[in-house]
Amino acid sequence: MRIILTGAGGFVGRHLAHRLLSPGPNGGLNGRPVTRLVLADLELADPELAAFDDARVVRVAGDLSDADVRARLVAGGADVLFHLAALPGGAAARDPGLSRKVNLDGTLDLVEAFAAAKDAAAPPPRVVYTSTIAVLGHPMPATVDDATPLRPAMTYGAHKLMVELALADYRRRGLVDPVAIRLSGILARPGGATGLKSAFMSDVFHALVARRPYTCPVSPAATIWAMSLDRCVDNLVHAAVMESGLMPAGGAVTLPALCFSMESLVGAIARLAGADPALVSYAPDAGLEAAFGAHPPLETPAADAAGFRHDGTVDALVESALATL
Amino acid sequence: MRIILTGAGGFVGRHLAHRLLSPGPNGGLNGRPVTRLVLADLELADPELAAFDDARVVRVAGDLSDADVRARLVAGGADVLFHLAALPGGAAARDPGLSRKVNLDGTLDLVEAFAAAKDAAAPPPRVVYTSTIAVLGHPMPATVDDATPLRPAMTYGAHKLMVELALADYRRRGLVDPVAIRLSGILARPGGATGLKSAFMSDVFHALVARRPYTCPVSPAATIWAMSLDRCVDNLVHAAVMESGLMPAGGAVTLPALCFSMESLVGAIARLAGADPALVSYAPDAGLEAAFGAHPPLETPAADAAGFRHDGTVDALVESALATL
Repeated sequence: MRIILTGAGGFVGRHLAHRLLSPGPNGGLNGRPVTRLVLADLELADPELAAFDDARVVRVAGDLSDADVRARLVAGGADVLFHLAALPGGAAARDPGLSRKVNLDGTLDLVEAFAAAKDAAAPPPRVVYTSTIAVLGHPMPATVDDATPLRPAMTYGAHKLMVELALADYRRRGLVDPVAIRLSGILARPGGATGLKSAFMSDVFHALVARRPYTCPVSPAATIWAMSLDRCVDNLVHAAVMESGLMPAGGAVTLPALCFSMESLVGAIARLAGADPALVSYAPDAGLEAAFGAHPPLETPAADAAGFRHDGTVDALVESALATL
Repeated sequence: MRIILTGAGGFVGRHLAHRLLSPGPNGGLNGRPVTRLVLADLELADPELAAFDDARVVRVAGDLSDADVRARLVAGGADVLFHLAALPGGAAARDPGLSRKVNLDGTLDLVEAFAAAKDAAAPPPRVVYTSTIAVLGHPMPATVDDATPLRPAMTYGAHKLMVELALADYRRRGLVDPVAIRLSGILARPGGATGLKSAFMSDVFHALVARRPYTCPVSPAATIWAMSLDRCVDNLVHAAVMESGLMPAGGAVTLPALCFSMESLVGAIARLAGADPALVSYAPDAGLEAAFGAHPPLETPAADAAGFRHDGTVDALVESALATL
């Protein structure tokens, strides 16, 4: 399988690249070997990425808004495009014009270039697109399921949903074979500013593991949806190899995620990392609480039927997240 | 009121321009006088448009995809932008790339330029955006209402829905004050190819009035949603002057429309125009029937509450449509 991966320098991208290059039944695309992997990002100088010393790897560093960069990226086509590159939510809110350029226009340009680069006789190639639960907006109803109306409440979610619609149109037109999956919180991201408003879910891991005090910007009762990094990569790989006929009309699904309170997350991390949960104090910010800490129970029958999975239990999620910290 | 009108050379645009320039309580914006009207279209050489010999009128001919044309159009700002210009459904299906350029990218660029041209101290200006029932897609459920999922089944509808989402985001960001209204069939359009797949609804008017035989490409039992040209312009003017707080979350509504069968439409036209309904024969095309002739009952509580109206009865619709033929 020949693969293109954008956002390869990011948190999820790097972990996915490792998985794709790994041998054995859990490596590659669920055991199907990867023969070529194009890693793309604004820069690829990160030591961890530089360490991908593998003859199958091609590196393309540059801005996907640049047509030349796109052309280099898709040259020769591929079987799967993982499009993870994005300007994240907080950064998109601060610079909506850049969000349009990256998250909307650049994404459509890339998918169209990818479709055009394929062998004329080949079927439409798979695009795995990481959308977001931000397409749902807030306030959310008492339960969220596949019938919940999509009303994004921030620019990031609006642009992601616009791309979902465009992908469904590309699918009808036979350009690509898209699978759009809406990610919730991925645990645990590296510490420090990432432009993600939901960074607190990850920051609490780093604080407890380091035995540092942490002031959580949402309340103990705040509820979040999340999956571990490893489970996220499991789902991305599944999205690349599944039959697209398993996807519902519309071509996008909200991925299964565990719904739990911050208090229960803090308890599980403290227990499994051997830290004192009292290191965490709470100073809720009303805006963050409304946007990221008021998640109702989540039902995802379409994604479940299509074979996507969450971590099972909060303990399993935390254990997995701690292992990739 | 200072107004910009794109698509001024089109069927609806011309009728709207006439209304805006008319004196009296039914002219202008429901009696509010229009002090400046910028008419924009690819070309404005049409004799009817050339006849707008009015000191208030400014003409801007050119492609809205051209930044210079957009700059001329929005120079000095305006109180209301009516954005009617679009590549219609059939043409968009034949050239999806051009649809993206016109119906998506060019539209967003125009709205952003309009927002940037406003006086810094002025509130966000109104944008009236003509969306389409094509955002609903097909097959449709047994009844369509404001909770019906939006799953466009053609490029035109996908791009229109993407713009609805972008407008809702612009509203949140305080750039503009948008009112997006989804139009169904407008009767009766001029005869001849217009790029609209729904042209049959209008062509049957012209045939019966001219006592010409007409082969209808949908069945007698085919059901359509429509409003008269005059009622459409009533709704456009209402969209320009209404309080935006009357619009539902999301900022877009499906306009009220009468739902009726082709057979009842043919009967009403024949009766009111004194023609023989037997001039119409039927040779249904399965694709057209599915996309344009299978409309279930329509409920539009959000638009009703916001003050939009349909024609009341099929006879009233046909009478109004015949008067503007």
